[in-house]
Amino acid sequence: MAQFINAKEAIVTEAIDGVIRASGGTLARLDGYPHIRVVLRKDWDRSRVALVSGGGSGHEPAHAGFVGAGMLTAAVCGDVFASPSVDAVLAGILAVTGPAGCLLIVKNYTGDRLNFGLAAERARAFGLQVNMVIVDDDIALPDLPQPRGVAGTLFVHKIAGAMSESGASLEEITAAARRVIAATRTLGMSLDTCTVPGSPKEHRIGQGKAELGLGIHGEAGVEQIDYHDATQAMATVTGRMQAVMPDLPHVALLNNLGGASVLEMSVLANELLTSPIAARLEQIIGPAALMTSLDMRGFSVSVCALAPEDQRWLAAPCAPSAWPGCKPVTPPALIELPDGLTPIQPIPSQHRQTAAFVARCCQVLIEAEADLNALDAKSGDGDTGSTLAGAARALLGAMDRLPLADHTQLYRAIGQELSQTMGGSSGVLLAIFFAAAGDAASSGLSMVAALKEGLARMQQIGGARPGDRTMVDALGPALDALETEGIAAAARAARRGAIHTSTILKARSGRAAYISAEQLDGNIDPGAEAVARLFEHLSA
Amino acid sequence: MAQFINAKEAIVTEAIDGVIRASGGTLARLDGYPHIRVVLRKDWDRSRVALVSGGGSGHEPAHAGFVGAGMLTAAVCGDVFASPSVDAVLAGILAVTGPAGCLLIVKNYTGDRLNFGLAAERARAFGLQVNMVIVDDDIALPDLPQPRGVAGTLFVHKIAGAMSESGASLEEITAAARRVIAATRTLGMSLDTCTVPGSPKEHRIGQGKAELGLGIHGEAGVEQIDYHDATQAMATVTGRMQAVMPDLPHVALLNNLGGASVLEMSVLANELLTSPIAARLEQIIGPAALMTSLDMRGFSVSVCALAPEDQRWLAAPCAPSAWPGCKPVTPPALIELPDGLTPIQPIPSQHRQTAAFVARCCQVLIEAEADLNALDAKSGDGDTGSTLAGAARALLGAMDRLPLADHTQLYRAIGQELSQTMGGSSGVLLAIFFAAAGDAASSGLSMVAALKEGLARMQQIGGARPGDRTMVDALGPALDALETEGIAAAARAARRGAIHTSTILKARSGRAAYISAEQLDGNIDPGAEAVARLFEHLSA
Repeated sequence: MAQFINAKEAIVTEAIDGVIRASGGTLARLDGYPHIRVVLRKDWDRSRVALVSGGGSGHEPAHAGFVGAGMLTAAVCGDVFASPSVDAVLAGILAVTGPAGCLLIVKNYTGDRLNFGLAAERARAFGLQVNMVIVDDDIALPDLPQPRGVAGTLFVHKIAGAMSESGASLEEITAAARRVIAATRTLGMSLDTCTVPGSPKEHRIGQGKAELGLGIHGEAGVEQIDYHDATQAMATVTGRMQAVMPDLPHVALLNNLGGASVLEMSVLANELLTSPIAARLEQIIGPAALMTSLDMRGFSVSVCALAPEDQRWLAAPCAPSAWPGCKPVTPPALIELPDGLTPIQPIPSQHRQTAAFVARCCQVLIEAEADLNALDAKSGDGDTGSTLAGAARALLGAMDRLPLADHTQLYRAIGQELSQTMGGSSGVLLAIFFAAAGDAASSGLSMVAALKEGLARMQQIGGARPGDRTMVDALGPALDALETEGIAAAARAARRGAIHTSTILKARSGRAAYISAEQLDGNIDPGAEAVARLFEHLSA
Repeated sequence: MAQFINAKEAIVTEAIDGVIRASGGTLARLDGYPHIRVVLRKDWDRSRVALVSGGGSGHEPAHAGFVGAGMLTAAVCGDVFASPSVDAVLAGILAVTGPAGCLLIVKNYTGDRLNFGLAAERARAFGLQVNMVIVDDDIALPDLPQPRGVAGTLFVHKIAGAMSESGASLEEITAAARRVIAATRTLGMSLDTCTVPGSPKEHRIGQGKAELGLGIHGEAGVEQIDYHDATQAMATVTGRMQAVMPDLPHVALLNNLGGASVLEMSVLANELLTSPIAARLEQIIGPAALMTSLDMRGFSVSVCALAPEDQRWLAAPCAPSAWPGCKPVTPPALIELPDGLTPIQPIPSQHRQTAAFVARCCQVLIEAEADLNALDAKSGDGDTGSTLAGAARALLGAMDRLPLADHTQLYRAIGQELSQTMGGSSGVLLAIFFAAAGDAASSGLSMVAALKEGLARMQQIGGARPGDRTMVDALGPALDALETEGIAAAARAARRGAIHTSTILKARSGRAAYISAEQLDGNIDPGAEAVARLFEHLSA
């Protein structure tokens, strides 16, 4: 699978530059490319405890995306899935550490421990106060000798970041970080491996399988399990979690490992927050891509038992936009459906002339069925005649319940009948036409002016403009003529408009848009023909 | 490819419930499942203009993820890639619209136009003020009759949302929305099709190809092009953009269509902000997944020419955490590398006794090379002897530049030499050992106490605990004995510790962790053996 990258060697520096350019001027980097890739806060004055994290790249937005007020002071970025060098880490420490000292937040991978560890020693030789905590939140196996550091690292970033911002001391922050690490557990699951730039993709996970208990470097999970659905996937993860979680209030972090869709992550959030451990989850971070494994189609759940002060640190504002916030878990609030969804039935009324008028119109459309179908067969699917005739028959059958004596109500009522019996776009468009006309009539407009309003609204919603080879090309001129010259002129205008559609060789709207010019040439649009026939009949 | 979903029919309601549960209590939904899926602000009091958007699902976080103070009032969610019904839209409008009226923000797809349009008519029949704007930002083709509405819709959500929050009128907001729509252009590119739940994946885009100009419903792009790399991909998109962009300040929105990794999106951000159109981009939103097409591995770029007031609306705070903020575009700021990366070279000094002591230690390790290799072959890769002997030889060669007369400096200097000549974890660990010992010695500790500090730090960083079958098992007891009983006792303790490692059948650290108990049984750890030989030689 191709990726949106350039040369493999340039991925990390290009990605860092992208992050900095889009950071709104809040981030900078050390001038040490290509080997020293350190992203840091531009506004940092060394007055408080510096927080430095990092590790291999490929976990974006971690770590550069979490640099900013209230979170990390600097991130040291290695190659994809490879620890940064001692020199790079040291450069990061030296660049940000003042008298308040520095805390290194390191995920438990050998390379990171060693390189951050030695850099810390070298920094101490300059007289700097440097502490280091190692995050080991992975519970893939119950007795892992060296549990990996994975997405739970974010709890440490956020809590330590808020404490530093508030002016806490290095010892206070270090103690809090150690407490948070001890209280944090993470477990991940994936449906596919990730695509490591420059390496062929390893197809390790078969159809119908998932890997449980994976790290964030593409390494295999501790077991392959059968995969059924989101419910079973989350039940498996939370089941393992439950076995090792104390019965205390927790904060959960739902992490997208990179390739799951936002839709899937929302479904998983619902599963997590209705799972057996949900009762212990007071706060939630995400779902969001926070500690990814490139494009891995998977997720991880992290939980951390909350100390009383943590909630404040987790909720404190921070600059990095990659941080999705920490929110209280709540059941979905329901709001009653509003009244008015069932359309108000108009009060039927009698009006002999109107009834006869409507019936005549319907009759015209019924008689035109075969002709209109034939026309439509040349530019569409041949059913315009049947659709209109069907609607006309339905309207005739509904005559008893129409408010025939109240013309403004009548427009609406006809629209409603048509939308229920015609189906498809034409039903909706005619419903809009009559509803808007009714609206306009009830606000005092004349019948013709009201119909023109209806036409305008129908055009706005349907998108058909004059010249687009639709019924608008007959109806528009007809209503214009009707307003100024009467019904006979309207009929002539409708016919002229209908004939004109036979010369329009490019339809811009409706199904005829997909038909070639040769097929359209000389054929009147069936909707325009129906309009012309209606007006011709009414003027006769 | 399996997905983290359950029954197809339940995807949308489950995803909505997930969004609401994780919203921190800010969202609610109408009680109309399964057909009416409307998410709305829980704190809404109808005192300002309501903003209702929506459409098919599969575009998450759009639209439910953008409901909240400062953005949408309600989102109406259809099935995946299918418009919501007229009733659902109407329910949304009726639930949130007060005297200030309601603006419908609709993407230009026929189903959405019709259903939102008819719902608006029905709402107007209740006397509600309802306006509707149609977003048509897609520039896939220069003369599209009905350009689709895609990610540029977010500009409208944000600007209209901020205006509504500030109390602007329906007419003001509608006019601004129309202006923003007219000023917005979007173009997308993808390397793969998306996976529609319940449908087999269409493999339409071949290896080495990309689709340009796609909508957000999995429909094919207007053309397939050759794909080379991120630079060429973004150059293609911005080239088309440039041709239709006025020479005005713009805001850009870089959207992940769902399946691109965060790393890739950062690389693309760098390309966008160094492209020929970058000079016109004053503000940037993202990169982020904002208007997705399920898991499509693609991106889109939207640009909007900025009116003077827009910057304020775009920057205004808003509640939805899916909104990544709008930030000024800046060139990457560079900060000079700190001093101190080149280790300070100690001043060499002479000290005959110390020189002889160091040389003896080195000689012991050189003589033990073959034995230690043989031991390591049984539990590792057989090179411990050579690694240590090589380091010893290097140290002998460096004798002239060591500060032999200054023991605290000597520790550090030895550590530095070892880290440069040994390579791998052992070099780093011994460097940490000697650096920490030097630190401790310079703060006044005795030689033995300083070495114990070094051991503690090495254990902390390396993770090896007593009983883990490493050199710690010999070195720890030896230093303890040395402190209280002298060198002979230390040598005995080291040997006892080394022999003990031959009975430890489970290594918890280092390479031996991957070896079976049978292979370990009876074999002394080579690191522990080296320590024992050193002490035995020194006590002899």
